[in-house]
Amino acid sequence: MEFRIIKTPSKGTMDILKRRMGSNNKSDFDNVDAVGLVQGKMIEMICAADVAEKAVGVTVEDIRGSCPQNMILIAIFGDTASVEDAIHEIKRKLEEGKDLW
Amino acid sequence: MEFRIIKTPSKGTMDILKRRMGSNNKSDFDNVDAVGLVQGKMIEMICAADVAEKAVGVTVEDIRGSCPQNMILIAIFGDTASVEDAIHEIKRKLEEGKDLW
Amino acid sequence: MEFRIIKTPSKGTMDILKRRMGSNNKSDFDNVDAVGLVQGKMIEMICAADVAEKAVGVTVEDIRGSCPQNMILIAIFGDTASVEDAIHEIKRKLEEGKDLW
Amino acid sequence: MEFRIIKTPSKGTMDILKRRMGSNNKSDFDNVDAVGLVQGKMIEMICAADVAEKAVGVTVEDIRGSCPQNMILIAIFGDTASVEDAIHEIKRKLEEGKDLW
Amino acid sequence: MEFRIIKTPSKGTMDILKRRMGSNNKSDFDNVDAVGLVQGKMIEMICAADVAEKAVGVTVEDIRGSCPQNMILIAIFGDTASVEDAIHEIKRKLEEGKDLW
Amino acid sequence: MEFRIIKTPSKGTMDILKRRMGSNNKSDFDNVDAVGLVQGKMIEMICAADVAEKAVGVTVEDIRGSCPQNMILIAIFGDTASVEDAIHEIKRKLEEGKDLW
Repeated sequence: MEFRIIKTPSKGTMDILKRRMGSNNKSDFDNVDAVGLVQGKMIEMICAADVAEKAVGVTVEDIRGSCPQNMILIAIFGDTASVEDAIHEIKRKLEEGKDLW
Repeated sequence: MEFRIIKTPSKGTMDILKRRMGSNNKSDFDNVDAVGLVQGKMIEMICAADVAEKAVGVTVEDIRGSCPQNMILIAIFGDTASVEDAIHEIKRKLEEGKDLW
Repeated sequence: MEFRIIKTPSKGTMDILKRRMGSNNKSDFDNVDAVGLVQGKMIEMICAADVAEKAVGVTVEDIRGSCPQNMILIAIFGDTASVEDAIHEIKRKLEEGKDLW
Repeated sequence: MEFRIIKTPSKGTMDILKRRMGSNNKSDFDNVDAVGLVQGKMIEMICAADVAEKAVGVTVEDIRGSCPQNMILIAIFGDTASVEDAIHEIKRKLEEGKDLW
Repeated sequence: MEFRIIKTPSKGTMDILKRRMGSNNKSDFDNVDAVGLVQGKMIEMICAADVAEKAVGVTVEDIRGSCPQNMILIAIFGDTASVEDAIHEIKRKLEEGKDLW
Repeated sequence: MEFRIIKTPSKGTMDILKRRMGSNNKSDFDNVDAVGLVQGKMIEMICAADVAEKAVGVTVEDIRGSCPQNMILIAIFGDTASVEDAIHEIKRKLEEGKDLW
């Protein structure tokens, strides 16, 4: 499982992400402050998406990989502090072990 | 073979799962209490799906991976206790060895 | 190469298998007693399919994996004893070595 | 690189192979005596196909793997002796080293 | 993560790259001085694309790999000095560690 | 990175290659003297294609692998001496290290 945060992502970076989004509300992401990226196995990414969704101030999207239905990457959009909080929450939940899922 | 249980999954998490379901009765999953996730090789997942199907109080769906026909993940929907029972049953059957399949 | 036998497969398990079958005679499998699963490399699975086809009382189908033309799994349908015999025959032929193929 | 020879292949085995052939002359293979299978990396399989094509009494087809254009397996059809000769020739050429290709 | 720079790329090389570009403005690349190539995991390539986009004098494109939506390679077009600067900036950012992303 | 040279390729071998070519000028390859094959990672193959394109007397094509846009193999057509020269040039450039790309 890997994590990255891009602050004030460039337009070209957002275009790359938008071309791979599973959902249709792509216009909502025109002025994002930061984007958090989490990559891992599909089973982990579904759990990570759920943790991030339950955090405040962020929107979660799955970014398609080699084929349309393969989710290997999720993107978390929001202001920098909220994205960092969501990623810390994902890390914390993972460290608590599988019992808490 | 990996296991996860998500309690009261968020709407976004359910959307991600629904987009990858092989069956068509997707409206049945609007108010699930918990979802169990099991990921593994295709041969194991078909056996795991059969064990879970024979458990009570749960519904089993295969969640498509990188391509439409690749089943690398199954989801088990139901109340938390039933989902946990189904996953324990899968674990128990696997520990009994291949003879019992 | 891996082997599994599912006795009295559930309807959901048969649905998962039917959605991935290469052939069209899917209605023939409504009341199968047992299903044997064999997973391996494509070259081995073609040989295994040939051994099973030459056994009595079973029907062999290839179950598609990640993409329509990728055979990583074959299913052997029939009564439990015939399916077990076919799988033992596959194991025996493999142990005899490549000379006998 | 792996090799297998199936003598008097069953109808079901031939059906599996025919569904994956790259060429269209599939009716030519209704009464083959034997089929040799060679699996390996694409670069090796193109060389192996060339060696087999230059042998006498056999027909060579590429059998598609996970996607239509992925050749991971070639099939060599003919009488048993010719198929065995073609496979021995492939083995011999490979042992001579890359200099002779 | 791997890096390469091709100076004065040949027409055939540009054709190979253009056939894999995600965007549509392919005519802009007819007289490029140099092309930098960066290959890596999807999460790293999105970050690398963002770093390169924020550099001056270069254009960034994702080059599709095995399937249309799989980005395993990005190309950075511009004069040689600008491409080299963009790649050095990607290397530098990566060495600073994940904290700075 | 692997290399092979096929001298006077058979018609069947050329058919396999032509079915996987990215370009459309497939009739130009009816009487080739030799074909050099180079297989490797996409980033290396783009560089190798550029080196071969800048050599004299050869034509370079990318041969598609598991999916239409995945280049894992390039073919270099020409008389035997020119193909060998192009492959030696690719090897030499690779040994000089990444600095020279």
